[in-house]
Amino acid sequence: MSTDTQPGRPTTDQPGVPRQGGRRPLLPLEDAGRASLFTQARTANRFTDEPVSDAELAELWELARWAPTSANTQPLRVLFVRTEEGRARLAARMAGGNRERVEGAPAVAVLAVDRRFHTRIPEVMPPMAQLQEALEADPAKREGMGGFSAAMQTGYLLLAARAVGLAAGPMAGFDAEGVDADFFTGPDEEHWHAVLVVTLGHPDESSYRPRMPRLAAEDVVRWA
Amino acid sequence: MSTDTQPGRPTTDQPGVPRQGGRRPLLPLEDAGRASLFTQARTANRFTDEPVSDAELAELWELARWAPTSANTQPLRVLFVRTEEGRARLAARMAGGNRERVEGAPAVAVLAVDRRFHTRIPEVMPPMAQLQEALEADPAKREGMGGFSAAMQTGYLLLAARAVGLAAGPMAGFDAEGVDADFFTGPDEEHWHAVLVVTLGHPDESSYRPRMPRLAAEDVVRWA
Repeated sequence: MSTDTQPGRPTTDQPGVPRQGGRRPLLPLEDAGRASLFTQARTANRFTDEPVSDAELAELWELARWAPTSANTQPLRVLFVRTEEGRARLAARMAGGNRERVEGAPAVAVLAVDRRFHTRIPEVMPPMAQLQEALEADPAKREGMGGFSAAMQTGYLLLAARAVGLAAGPMAGFDAEGVDADFFTGPDEEHWHAVLVVTLGHPDESSYRPRMPRLAAEDVVRWA
Repeated sequence: MSTDTQPGRPTTDQPGVPRQGGRRPLLPLEDAGRASLFTQARTANRFTDEPVSDAELAELWELARWAPTSANTQPLRVLFVRTEEGRARLAARMAGGNRERVEGAPAVAVLAVDRRFHTRIPEVMPPMAQLQEALEADPAKREGMGGFSAAMQTGYLLLAARAVGLAAGPMAGFDAEGVDADFFTGPDEEHWHAVLVVTLGHPDESSYRPRMPRLAAEDVVRWA
């Protein structure tokens, strides 16, 4: 990726808070937080007219980006689409009813995997810098690792949207190659590949349908 | 799956709280919650001697299971390993230093994808019941969909561990086929395939190494 060859460009950063020694222990999430992120939150199909600011979208990513990935590789990339022109271009690549959802949402995120994510490994995981070469030589392993971590990060991003007070509507029905061709053409984005489109906004709760059931724990969980 | 053919067995459930009308709006996560789940939480490699109860592990899954998946398919399955015998069997399938991590953790979760997850679609997504047949006929699409949603659910589970006050240590270095052969042999589990092993416990923060850097937002986020 071209960003690897631009000296002086800040490519990584850390929060200002010291990580070791003397910090306060982290607390379990209280009930309100559990409701907002897990038990009471809903996927949204329609939103109110309340706008979503760029600051809210930046805040969303500022949370999501700290959650863990395999070897800290962070393969997910995010395109936030808010302009009318951008949403119209994106909507044209959506399938069926997903077109209206994109047109009607205050903001939309296109989530993508950077197929060349491994080129950043020397920066993001210096102790395993040699993993870059191993993945360069093994496209199947590279794709599997990138796909798994990008999907984990997709989960983080959906919960981070809830954490900043937004609701999300993820959609897999769209022309991914078309989205790539329309939006990921610059030298820094040419290896990005769209995996999910997510509408974002303040939910119109009157549009909620009954929640679909979850599998019972006894069908999912085993003990040894 | 055999669970589909056992009438009377509760396979799905809902929380007792009504989902529509008159409910209180969900609030954004406050700073302490953001720290616990996203900005200050760490992956753990070592844990204190404080035990992890089965109730804590059940509580973890009770949160994670509500987060969204593609067509509500919920392909992730979870094996919690707490007994000495179970941990020894699992440790034997781990690579290198991951063996000690499994042996030294109060609890371990083996995360798996149910390769026959699509057989549950008529229960979990009745409006799209025909998707079961479409996925039965298309193994590549089935595997892609199951893998993506199981990885999203992996992300949810790692954050849910933090939400209940635990720290997690995910590990991809293990003999997945060996784990399948050792643990997923019953008629209800024979299609489960291990994808990640996660140690769980109360973190020994003195073992934390400096956090590896995250990519800067300007390298990850684009705007349109």
